[in-house]
Amino acid sequence: MASSILSDCSSARLLPFRRALLPPPAARFRPCLALVYPRRLFVSSPAPLPPRLRRMDSVLAAAASSADSATVSTDALAKIIDGKMVAKQIREEIAVEITRMKDAIGIVPGLAVILVHMNDENILNAVSIEKDVDGFHPLNIGRLAMQGRDPFFVPCTPKGCMELLHRYGVEIKGKRAVVIGRSNIVGMPAALLLQKANATVSIVHSQTKNPEEITRQADIVIAAVGVANLIRGNWIKPGAAIIDVGINPVDDLDSPRGYRLVGDVCYEEASKVAGAITPVPGGVGPMTIAMLLSNTLESAKRINKFK
Amino acid sequence: MASSILSDCSSARLLPFRRALLPPPAARFRPCLALVYPRRLFVSSPAPLPPRLRRMDSVLAAAASSADSATVSTDALAKIIDGKMVAKQIREEIAVEITRMKDAIGIVPGLAVILVHMNDENILNAVSIEKDVDGFHPLNIGRLAMQGRDPFFVPCTPKGCMELLHRYGVEIKGKRAVVIGRSNIVGMPAALLLQKANATVSIVHSQTKNPEEITRQADIVIAAVGVANLIRGNWIKPGAAIIDVGINPVDDLDSPRGYRLVGDVCYEEASKVAGAITPVPGGVGPMTIAMLLSNTLESAKRINKFK
Repeated sequence: MASSILSDCSSARLLPFRRALLPPPAARFRPCLALVYPRRLFVSSPAPLPPRLRRMDSVLAAAASSADSATVSTDALAKIIDGKMVAKQIREEIAVEITRMKDAIGIVPGLAVILVHMNDENILNAVSIEKDVDGFHPLNIGRLAMQGRDPFFVPCTPKGCMELLHRYGVEIKGKRAVVIGRSNIVGMPAALLLQKANATVSIVHSQTKNPEEITRQADIVIAAVGVANLIRGNWIKPGAAIIDVGINPVDDLDSPRGYRLVGDVCYEEASKVAGAITPVPGGVGPMTIAMLLSNTLESAKRINKFK
Repeated sequence: MASSILSDCSSARLLPFRRALLPPPAARFRPCLALVYPRRLFVSSPAPLPPRLRRMDSVLAAAASSADSATVSTDALAKIIDGKMVAKQIREEIAVEITRMKDAIGIVPGLAVILVHMNDENILNAVSIEKDVDGFHPLNIGRLAMQGRDPFFVPCTPKGCMELLHRYGVEIKGKRAVVIGRSNIVGMPAALLLQKANATVSIVHSQTKNPEEITRQADIVIAAVGVANLIRGNWIKPGAAIIDVGINPVDDLDSPRGYRLVGDVCYEEASKVAGAITPVPGGVGPMTIAMLLSNTLESAKRINKFK
């Protein structure tokens, strides 16, 4: 399923950044922050990683290496929205904040992963809303949907999409936006965020009869459907901003791993029409992790009343 | 504000139906069902109505009288979606169920109104999710938004809109739907319901630059913006189904009250283009009340484990 591919790829990159950013277990307090992807529960873990988790490191290393090798077509007209660079900036900002917090009150946030293979709805319902740094709890999604309410946490991938649009100066208010895909973890919350930012939003999904026609009307497209290269160049309005959330493996015999990662958007075609576009890899993926760290910091600050 | 007009008008018609349907205080158990509109809290009240509530009866009588006098343009091409008739059917179905429940377990649901003039967010947060027969609690809205989840209660007015579409055989799956207005109590939940029913949904609002162009693409329009006659005939795709939630007073010196009620849709124009349309009054208004009673019954059944 599309969303499981997305969540697996995105969440898989968590640990290296945790190691880079988070202080050792000497800190006197570590709030138990929990986040849930289907069949995976992420909670704090100051102890050494168990073998099962250490095995994830090879997956993470492969993803990082893949991101490093991202190439950009030289005849592209679109501005490249560089998620790697923005995510790096954000991680640096977070590191400064963590240091400030540690120096001031001796407290640092902590986050780790536990694989549990359980019903994700039951787990999500059991997670404290104050520790739901993924923002997947239905109460949080409800607050995201409602006028005059704010969510406790904005889900990481959609938050990353919005951050990219903001940092690249893409105007949202009054613009037509199309979200392709309606998953709980990306499509739906992304649509709700665009709507809160005063875009006019349409959600395109598997039952939509003319997705290319609707997408062609959009000034902003967020693609999160999990189908490699689905969105072709002729789906894109000239000058549109394209955020590609898809991370899909396709066969590539020239790659040492026998596959490479591509987005939901046919980059070669779309980059000649769009005004701005995220590459895959190196676009939204790194932003998801940065936003997870941002939410984790936010949670720790809130719990400890630190500003 | 649009939504306050809607909620005032809709909720104002509650009491006569309550009196018609609900048994006297002799029943041995009355669950405390609570629903909240901005600045109004509705909870169970077996005691006689206080003077403040009794004054609402005159408002209700005026609304009912206005509904009785609904007229239909003779040169309309559109099928009239008769909310009064459907609501009557539903109330009769509910009455049968209440009788069955009372006979079987001696329990009947109860519902009344208290005016409290408090912060509606605080009140909504305090309402038990099991008694939120309005379906306005953010947890409920979150479950409405999410794939694979179901809300405890579907908000009454949007539920009424969907019921009208269903009972008049309007196909939703795969169709383009436009919701005009994004209030917490009508527009947003209506969009989420259409989306759950597999329509391709766009939300048009005050910041939308070309509302008429987007609306003209829709096979289904739900108008809930609170501006009299905003949606003109040339906004409508020929054959579209139009659900008009608006209830707006406009000056009418020929009326004994000096005003009459009209919808958000210019009925005279739209009824010549649309395939089906709700009148105002006599369309969505009565459905809201029927759905409130339906949710109340559902809540009482659920609490008492009666099927």
